[in-house]
Amino acid sequence: MSDVLVSHIGIAVSDLEKAVETYKLITGNDSPVIEEVEDQKVKVAMFTRPEDDSPHPQGKIELVAATATDSPIARYIARNGEGLHHICIYVDDIEQRLAELKAAGYRLVDETPRIGAKGAKIAFVHPSAAHAVLIELEERK
Amino acid sequence: MSDVLVSHIGIAVSDLEKAVETYKLITGNDSPVIEEVEDQKVKVAMFTRPEDDSPHPQGKIELVAATATDSPIARYIARNGEGLHHICIYVDDIEQRLAELKAAGYRLVDETPRIGAKGAKIAFVHPSAAHAVLIELEERK
Repeated sequence: MSDVLVSHIGIAVSDLEKAVETYKLITGNDSPVIEEVEDQKVKVAMFTRPEDDSPHPQGKIELVAATATDSPIARYIARNGEGLHHICIYVDDIEQRLAELKAAGYRLVDETPRIGAKGAKIAFVHPSAAHAVLIELEERK
Repeated sequence: MSDVLVSHIGIAVSDLEKAVETYKLITGNDSPVIEEVEDQKVKVAMFTRPEDDSPHPQGKIELVAATATDSPIARYIARNGEGLHHICIYVDDIEQRLAELKAAGYRLVDETPRIGAKGAKIAFVHPSAAHAVLIELEERK
Protein backbone atom coordinates (compact mmCIF):
# COMPACT_ATOMS: atom_id res chain seq x y z
CA MET A 1 0.00 0.00 0.00
CA SER A 2 1.28 3.40 -0.94
CA ASP A 3 1.99 5.56 2.08
CA VAL A 4 2.13 8.95 0.41
CA LEU A 5 -0.15 10.59 -2.05
CA VAL A 6 0.09 13.99 -3.67
CA SER A 7 3.52 15.23 -4.71
CA HIS A 8 2.25 18.44 -6.28
CA ILE A 9 -0.57 20.20 -8.04
CA GLY A 10 0.21 21.85 -11.36
CA ILE A 11 -1.56 25.14 -12.13
CA ALA A 12 -1.29 26.52 -15.67
CA VAL A 13 -0.74 30.29 -15.64
CA SER A 14 -0.19 32.89 -18.34
CA ASP A 15 2.07 35.25 -16.41
CA LEU A 16 4.40 33.47 -14.01
CA GLU A 17 5.58 36.56 -12.13
CA LYS A 18 2.05 37.75 -11.51
CA ALA A 19 0.91 34.29 -10.41
CA VAL A 20 3.90 33.97 -8.07
CA GLU A 21 2.89 37.19 -6.33
CA THR A 22 -0.68 35.91 -5.95
CA TYR A 23 0.33 32.54 -4.52
CA LYS A 24 2.79 34.15 -2.14
CA LEU A 25 -0.18 36.03 -0.70
CA ILE A 26 -2.41 32.96 -0.67
CA THR A 27 0.08 30.60 0.94
CA GLY A 28 2.06 33.03 3.07
CA ASN A 29 5.20 31.37 1.63
CA ASP A 30 7.44 33.91 -0.07
CA SER A 31 10.21 31.66 -1.33
CA PRO A 32 9.13 29.45 -4.21
CA VAL A 33 11.82 27.72 -6.25
CA ILE A 34 11.76 28.93 -9.84
CA GLU A 35 13.31 26.95 -12.67
CA GLU A 36 13.04 26.52 -16.40
CA VAL A 37 12.37 23.07 -17.87
CA GLU A 38 13.62 23.50 -21.43
CA ASP A 39 12.49 20.08 -22.59
CA GLN A 40 8.86 20.96 -21.80
CA LYS A 41 9.17 24.62 -22.84
CA VAL A 42 7.95 25.76 -19.46
CA LYS A 43 9.10 27.79 -16.51
CA VAL A 44 7.83 26.64 -13.14
CA ALA A 45 7.58 28.06 -9.64
CA MET A 46 7.39 25.38 -6.95
CA PHE A 47 5.94 26.30 -3.58
CA THR A 48 7.15 23.75 -1.10
CA ARG A 49 7.58 23.69 2.64
CA PRO A 50 10.70 25.75 3.22
CA GLU A 51 12.02 23.46 5.93
CA ASP A 52 11.08 20.21 4.16
CA ASP A 53 14.33 18.37 3.49
CA SER A 54 12.57 15.11 2.62
CA PRO A 55 13.60 13.62 -0.73
CA HIS A 56 9.87 13.39 -1.47
CA PRO A 57 8.23 16.57 -0.25
CA GLN A 58 4.46 16.42 -0.42
CA GLY A 59 1.63 18.76 -1.17
CA LYS A 60 3.57 21.26 -3.26
CA ILE A 61 2.04 23.82 -5.62
CA GLU A 62 3.65 24.13 -9.05
CA LEU A 63 2.80 27.17 -11.15
CA VAL A 64 3.57 26.39 -14.80
CA ALA A 65 3.93 28.96 -17.57
CA ALA A 66 4.86 28.42 -21.21
CA THR A 67 8.17 29.75 -22.56
CA ALA A 68 7.17 29.23 -26.22
CA THR A 69 3.93 29.37 -28.18
CA ASP A 70 4.23 25.65 -29.04
CA SER A 71 4.64 24.63 -25.41
CA PRO A 72 2.00 22.11 -24.25
CA ILE A 73 1.04 24.62 -21.55
CA ALA A 74 0.50 27.39 -24.13
CA ARG A 75 -1.83 25.06 -26.04
CA TYR A 76 -3.62 24.10 -22.84
CA ILE A 77 -4.24 27.72 -21.86
CA ALA A 78 -5.39 28.62 -25.38
CA ARG A 79 -8.02 25.86 -25.13
CA ASN A 80 -9.02 25.96 -21.47
CA GLY A 81 -7.70 29.15 -19.93
CA GLU A 82 -5.61 29.21 -16.78
CA GLY A 83 -6.34 26.83 -13.93
CA LEU A 84 -5.72 23.46 -12.38
CA HIS A 85 -3.76 21.43 -14.93
CA HIS A 86 -2.60 18.17 -13.33
CA ILE A 87 -1.94 16.43 -10.06
CA CYS A 88 1.13 14.36 -9.39
CA ILE A 89 0.80 11.36 -7.11
CA TYR A 90 3.66 9.44 -5.54
CA VAL A 91 3.52 5.70 -6.04
CA ASP A 92 5.79 2.98 -4.72
CA ASP A 93 6.02 0.89 -7.89
CA ILE A 94 5.13 2.76 -11.06
CA GLU A 95 5.35 -0.27 -13.35
CA GLN A 96 2.86 -2.11 -11.15
CA ARG A 97 0.43 0.83 -11.11
CA LEU A 98 0.61 1.15 -14.91
CA ALA A 99 0.17 -2.60 -15.39
CA GLU A 100 -2.89 -2.74 -13.12
CA LEU A 101 -4.47 0.30 -14.77
CA LYS A 102 -3.83 -1.06 -18.25
CA ALA A 103 -5.17 -4.50 -17.32
CA ALA A 104 -8.35 -2.83 -16.04
CA GLY A 105 -8.81 -1.05 -19.38
CA TYR A 106 -7.80 2.48 -18.39
CA ARG A 107 -6.21 4.73 -20.99
CA LEU A 108 -2.61 5.75 -20.35
CA VAL A 109 -0.59 8.56 -21.91
CA ASP A 110 2.64 6.72 -21.07
CA GLU A 111 2.51 2.93 -21.06
CA THR A 112 6.07 2.81 -19.77
CA PRO A 113 7.67 5.32 -17.42
CA ARG A 114 9.87 8.13 -18.62
CA ILE A 115 12.39 10.17 -16.73
CA GLY A 116 11.23 13.46 -15.25
CA ALA A 117 12.80 16.13 -13.06
CA LYS A 118 15.56 14.94 -10.74
CA GLY A 119 15.73 11.57 -12.50
CA ALA A 120 12.40 10.33 -11.14
CA LYS A 121 10.36 7.77 -13.08
CA ILE A 122 7.10 9.39 -14.14
CA ALA A 123 4.11 8.54 -16.34
CA PHE A 124 0.88 10.27 -17.22
CA VAL A 125 -2.57 8.67 -17.04
CA HIS A 126 -5.07 10.04 -19.54
CA PRO A 127 -7.79 12.33 -18.11
CA SER A 128 -10.46 10.10 -19.64
CA ALA A 129 -9.28 7.35 -17.28
CA ALA A 130 -9.37 9.50 -14.17
CA HIS A 131 -12.67 11.39 -14.11
CA ALA A 132 -11.30 14.22 -16.25
CA VAL A 133 -8.14 14.76 -14.23
CA LEU A 134 -4.68 14.60 -15.81
CA ILE A 135 -2.70 12.41 -13.40
CA GLU A 136 1.07 12.23 -13.26
CA LEU A 137 2.49 9.27 -11.38
CA GLU A 138 5.94 9.66 -9.82
CA GLU A 139 7.85 6.79 -8.32
CA ARG A 140 9.55 7.36 -5.00
CA LYS A 141 13.09 6.17 -5.28
CA MET B 1 5.97 31.74 7.08
CA SER B 2 3.61 28.86 6.57
CA ASP B 3 5.34 25.49 6.82
CA VAL B 4 2.73 23.32 5.17
CA LEU B 5 0.83 23.74 1.98
CA VAL B 6 -1.75 21.48 0.40
CA SER B 7 -4.27 19.81 2.69
CA HIS B 8 -6.22 18.17 -0.11
CA ILE B 9 -7.36 18.34 -3.70
CA GLY B 10 -11.09 18.14 -4.37
CA ILE B 11 -12.19 16.26 -7.48
CA ALA B 12 -15.83 16.53 -8.53
CA VAL B 13 -17.19 13.17 -9.67
CA SER B 14 -20.59 11.97 -10.84
CA ASP B 15 -20.41 8.43 -9.52
CA LEU B 16 -18.55 8.15 -6.22
CA GLU B 17 -18.31 4.35 -6.16
CA LYS B 18 -16.90 4.21 -9.66
CA ALA B 19 -14.44 7.02 -8.95
CA VAL B 20 -13.30 5.31 -5.73
CA GLU B 21 -12.47 2.17 -7.69
CA THR B 22 -10.46 4.22 -10.19
CA TYR B 23 -8.48 6.12 -7.57
CA LYS B 24 -7.76 2.95 -5.64
CA LEU B 25 -6.05 1.69 -8.78
CA ILE B 26 -4.26 5.00 -9.42
CA THR B 27 -2.96 5.49 -5.90
CA GLY B 28 -2.55 1.90 -4.79
CA ASN B 29 -4.39 2.91 -1.59
CA ASP B 30 -7.48 0.78 -1.05
CA SER B 31 -8.84 2.33 2.14
CA PRO B 32 -10.30 5.80 1.56
CA VAL B 33 -12.49 7.26 4.30
CA ILE B 34 -16.02 7.81 3.01
CA GLU B 35 -18.43 10.20 4.69
CA GLU B 36 -21.50 12.27 3.92
CA VAL B 37 -21.46 16.03 4.55
CA GLU B 38 -25.17 16.78 4.79
CA ASP B 39 -24.72 20.53 5.05
CA GLN B 40 -23.02 20.61 1.63
CA LYS B 41 -25.21 17.87 0.12
CA VAL B 42 -22.16 15.85 -0.81
CA LYS B 43 -20.61 12.50 -0.11
CA VAL B 44 -16.82 12.42 -0.08
CA ALA B 45 -14.11 9.80 -0.24
CA MET B 46 -10.82 10.96 1.27
CA PHE B 47 -7.62 9.19 0.26
CA THR B 48 -5.05 9.89 2.92
CA ARG B 49 -1.89 8.20 4.06
CA PRO B 50 -3.15 5.19 6.00
CA GLU B 51 -0.51 5.54 8.73
CA ASP B 52 -0.70 9.34 8.94
CA ASP B 53 -1.86 10.16 12.46
CA SER B 54 -0.96 13.84 12.14
CA PRO B 55 -3.78 16.23 13.07
CA HIS B 56 -3.06 17.94 9.72
CA PRO B 57 -2.42 15.25 7.13
CA GLN B 58 -1.21 16.65 3.86
CA GLY B 59 -1.63 15.90 0.20
CA LYS B 60 -4.91 14.08 0.42
CA ILE B 61 -7.27 13.42 -2.49
CA GLU B 62 -10.96 14.11 -1.87
CA LEU B 63 -13.49 12.73 -4.35
CA VAL B 64 -16.73 14.71 -4.03
CA ALA B 65 -20.12 13.61 -5.37
CA ALA B 66 -23.48 15.34 -5.02
CA THR B 67 -26.24 13.75 -2.96
CA ALA B 68 -28.96 16.08 -4.30
CA THR B 69 -29.58 17.86 -7.59
CA ASP B 70 -29.28 21.26 -5.89
CA SER B 71 -25.90 20.43 -4.38
CA PRO B 72 -23.15 22.89 -5.39
CA ILE B 73 -21.24 19.92 -6.81
CA ALA B 74 -24.20 18.88 -8.97
CA ARG B 75 -24.36 22.40 -10.38
CA TYR B 76 -20.58 22.42 -10.92
CA ILE B 77 -20.65 19.14 -12.84
CA ALA B 78 -23.64 20.27 -14.92
CA ARG B 79 -21.64 23.33 -16.00
CA ASN B 80 -18.09 21.98 -16.21
CA GLY B 81 -18.22 18.21 -16.13
CA GLU B 82 -16.16 16.15 -13.72
CA GLY B 83 -12.64 17.14 -12.78
CA LEU B 84 -10.41 19.11 -10.47
CA HIS B 85 -12.69 21.31 -8.36
CA HIS B 86 -10.65 23.00 -5.64
CA ILE B 87 -7.45 22.85 -3.67
CA CYS B 88 -7.27 23.32 0.06
CA ILE B 89 -4.18 24.98 1.52
CA TYR B 90 -3.19 25.01 5.16
CA VAL B 91 -2.37 28.43 6.56
CA ASP B 92 -1.13 29.44 9.98
CA ASP B 93 -3.33 32.50 10.45
CA ILE B 94 -6.42 32.57 8.25
CA GLU B 95 -7.54 36.07 9.32
CA GLN B 96 -4.14 37.46 8.34
CA ARG B 97 -4.21 35.74 4.92
CA LEU B 98 -7.72 37.05 4.22
CA ALA B 99 -6.79 40.56 5.36
CA GLU B 100 -3.67 40.65 3.16
CA LEU B 101 -5.55 39.31 0.13
CA LYS B 102 -8.41 41.76 0.62
CA ALA B 103 -6.02 44.68 1.10
CA ALA B 104 -4.32 43.72 -2.16
CA GLY B 105 -7.66 43.82 -3.99
CA TYR B 106 -8.27 40.09 -4.42
CA ARG B 107 -11.85 38.82 -4.51
CA LEU B 108 -12.86 36.54 -1.65
CA VAL B 109 -15.84 34.19 -1.38
CA ASP B 110 -15.64 34.36 2.42
CA GLU B 111 -14.36 37.60 3.93
CA THR B 112 -14.42 36.02 7.37
CA PRO B 113 -13.71 32.37 8.15
CA ARG B 114 -16.43 29.84 8.68
CA ILE B 115 -16.30 26.48 10.38
CA GLY B 116 -15.65 23.43 8.23
CA ALA B 117 -15.14 19.73 8.90
CA LYS B 118 -13.65 18.87 12.30
CA GLY B 119 -14.19 22.42 13.55
CA ALA B 120 -11.45 23.91 11.41
CA LYS B 121 -11.63 27.56 10.34
CA ILE B 122 -11.95 27.67 6.55
CA ALA B 123 -12.57 30.30 3.87
CA PHE B 124 -12.77 30.25 0.09
CA VAL B 125 -10.89 32.61 -2.23
CA HIS B 126 -12.67 33.34 -5.50
CA PRO B 127 -11.18 31.66 -8.60
CA SER B 128 -10.89 35.06 -10.30
CA ALA B 129 -8.33 35.97 -7.62
CA ALA B 130 -6.25 32.84 -8.03
CA HIS B 131 -5.66 32.27 -11.75
CA ALA B 132 -8.94 30.39 -12.16
CA VAL B 133 -8.43 28.04 -9.22
CA LEU B 134 -10.97 27.75 -6.41
CA ILE B 135 -8.83 27.92 -3.26
CA GLU B 136 -9.97 26.81 0.18
CA LEU B 137 -7.88 28.06 3.07
CA GLU B 138 -7.82 25.96 6.23
CA GLU B 139 -6.23 27.13 9.44
CA ARG B 140 -4.10 24.68 11.34
CA LYS B 141 -5.23 24.72 14.91
